[in-house]
Amino acid sequence: MTDDVRNIAAALDRITEPWQPHRLASINDYDVKVVRLDGEFVWHSHPETDELFLVRSGRLTIQLRDRDVELGPDDVFVVPAGVEHCPLAHGEVTALLIEPKGSVNTGDVGGDRTSQLREL
Amino acid sequence: MTDDVRNIAAALDRITEPWQPHRLASINDYDVKVVRLDGEFVWHSHPETDELFLVRSGRLTIQLRDRDVELGPDDVFVVPAGVEHCPLAHGEVTALLIEPKGSVNTGDVGGDRTSQLREL
Repeated sequence: MTDDVRNIAAALDRITEPWQPHRLASINDYDVKVVRLDGEFVWHSHPETDELFLVRSGRLTIQLRDRDVELGPDDVFVVPAGVEHCPLAHGEVTALLIEPKGSVNTGDVGGDRTSQLREL
Repeated sequence: MTDDVRNIAAALDRITEPWQPHRLASINDYDVKVVRLDGEFVWHSHPETDELFLVRSGRLTIQLRDRDVELGPDDVFVVPAGVEHCPLAHGEVTALLIEPKGSVNTGDVGGDRTSQLREL
């Protein structure tokens, strides 16, 4: 996989469902994922790791318990480890996520929004 | 720093010199850096870590000893740990780099192209 060039736009074209992270590339024990987001996710945290959001298109609010973080194209925000958050996409959003391998989208809460990492 | 929203375009606007990586964000013990590239760098490798290139604009060749990898906007390529490479930017290129904290741009060779990580 590390021998391949991956194109972000082409990868997103292959994804149809929101909230389904797909692996774009790996670096050591971290994954760079592409994802479509639409609507509100669930409140959760990742007790053991930070999580990086890089918005490519659309408008995304990262709801925190004490404030909202507003993101648009080209914006990067890191949710610190252990901090409860709930992403809210205003229409369709495309984004990159960076986190350690094995990280699950619903973090510590699980439930039916949990998605295993998909391959492109 | 993890409390801040960082905008990639705004970050690049603050960088004038090529080959000077600036920290955009950190996630755990990794840095996401923004950089301008122009012309040819130096042959080097990072014996202990992969290095991810994400091209935002321009055309970048990652020269490897056995082949050239051609990257354009939206392309992602991971140079595996220990693999000798020499980036060659055809005119100005802007890119994101992801690698562990403490990684140096010239890897195992050092020399006068070495740049300490800059803050934005």
